[in-house]
Amino acid sequence: MKVAVIGAAGFVGTRVVADFAAHPKVTEIRAIDRVAMGTAVPKTREIVGDFGEAATRKVAVDGADAVVHLASILGGAAEANPGLARRVNIDATLDLMEHLKQTAPATRLVFASTIAVYAKPMPDPVTDATPFGPTMLYGAQKLMIEVALSDYAARGWLDGVSLRPSGVMAREGTDAALKSAFMSRLFWAVARGDDMVLPVAAESRTWLASVTNVARNFVRATLIPKVGPITAMTLPALSLTFGELVAALHRRFPESPSRIAFAPDPETVGLFGEYPHLQTAAADALGFTRDHDADALVAQSLT
Amino acid sequence: MKVAVIGAAGFVGTRVVADFAAHPKVTEIRAIDRVAMGTAVPKTREIVGDFGEAATRKVAVDGADAVVHLASILGGAAEANPGLARRVNIDATLDLMEHLKQTAPATRLVFASTIAVYAKPMPDPVTDATPFGPTMLYGAQKLMIEVALSDYAARGWLDGVSLRPSGVMAREGTDAALKSAFMSRLFWAVARGDDMVLPVAAESRTWLASVTNVARNFVRATLIPKVGPITAMTLPALSLTFGELVAALHRRFPESPSRIAFAPDPETVGLFGEYPHLQTAAADALGFTRDHDADALVAQSLT
Repeated sequence: MKVAVIGAAGFVGTRVVADFAAHPKVTEIRAIDRVAMGTAVPKTREIVGDFGEAATRKVAVDGADAVVHLASILGGAAEANPGLARRVNIDATLDLMEHLKQTAPATRLVFASTIAVYAKPMPDPVTDATPFGPTMLYGAQKLMIEVALSDYAARGWLDGVSLRPSGVMAREGTDAALKSAFMSRLFWAVARGDDMVLPVAAESRTWLASVTNVARNFVRATLIPKVGPITAMTLPALSLTFGELVAALHRRFPESPSRIAFAPDPETVGLFGEYPHLQTAAADALGFTRDHDADALVAQSLT
Repeated sequence: MKVAVIGAAGFVGTRVVADFAAHPKVTEIRAIDRVAMGTAVPKTREIVGDFGEAATRKVAVDGADAVVHLASILGGAAEANPGLARRVNIDATLDLMEHLKQTAPATRLVFASTIAVYAKPMPDPVTDATPFGPTMLYGAQKLMIEVALSDYAARGWLDGVSLRPSGVMAREGTDAALKSAFMSRLFWAVARGDDMVLPVAAESRTWLASVTNVARNFVRATLIPKVGPITAMTLPALSLTFGELVAALHRRFPESPSRIAFAPDPETVGLFGEYPHLQTAAADALGFTRDHDADALVAQSLT
């Protein structure tokens, strides 16, 4: 099986490519990104370029049996540059779908959507029937593509599925454009013994998944024989309070001198700290999984 | 107040322009369409061109206080030409929104969406909380723009609102591209004394609104001081069986020799004959109305 990963040099993309490389069914990987991955990966041909350009798109996906589309302008980066966000998140993504429809409509397209499609405040629990109401630009754009891809899938124009991961842990380094960056920084702060002040309360609840878990779910979505009839779904995730998360981090690093304080910022709490419980029947039925518990989340987030 | 109507030469557009012309608050109307309207209308400047082209768009909307956007590739026409449908329904509409955001973010943009955003079968009743699941291409594209416009409105990028009219009665002449055309033809068949075989059952239920009523609602959406916080809503409509509709048509034209027979076609019944009851709390709260009853619908559809 030949697969293409768009956004291959990113946090999730790197792991998806590595998982494909280790999978016996996958014979060839095209890894597309604007930046180089930096490390050679077995079976993998790197393509450095913009998937929004027709020539790059063609080289990237022609002949692939499945495409994982992770490239996106996210969160605060989209808010800061709406024109770029439209070009990448809408125009180029619709162009990709149209290209695949016209050249290889049997292609499995696994699209990375987001839990930012939901309205705030969220009902408790969130289920597959929870209505949408994105408040961030990229959430609205991801929802637009979900609508388009579900339509393509229902018509047989593409074998498409949209997956909504929760906060993916634990990205190394800081990315100021991502308002959610403090969550990943927390993991590394405790691991390295640094102090940190969190902009949420100990009781604030959020949805988390390790990068190991999320990559595994994207690989699964690529390889299972059939998705549908539901073709857009929230992936399973752990619903944890930050207090529970900090406790798990200290269990993992009992020697860490790191002191974690809470100084809740209302906007940040509203964005990332008021999540309810989560039911993911559609994703569960397809065999997608969450991290087993907070301790597993911590272990799988720092590998 | 200066208004622009995009899609001004169409069935609804012509009536919206006429209603604006008769309204004392409206001082200037720009009527934009690819085809000429054919009749001069007071206060109205006609602009023949494609709103997807930047120069036409600029001439059409710059300086307008409100824009009514009715131009679209609908129903079977979109299915037959998906490339054109994307260009008009998505790309050009997003370009219009972006142009208004950048030049005049206070502009009221009234966007014509569709009840084709709902999944079939529909729950009974349909309410403002009913989830979406379009099955036709233009329904998916209209929903994508609803999502984008609600996002623009929430940010103050535009003063936007999406309205979903039901089947608008009664378009004269036949348009083979519209699978719903038989409904309008029924009105004219009884009015003219022609026989007709309907592809639905007497018990089949649908949602209908007269062009008079729909134009009035679009004009209202343009002129009321404030819309929101809900910025996408289904307009009130009559939920009628075709048997009830035929009876009302015969009451209106008691001398008509027209014989109406029913020969249900499953696909047509599924598309247009299995509607439930309809509750439109959000639209009701803003003063939008339905036709009073079947007799009023008939009278207002043939004016």
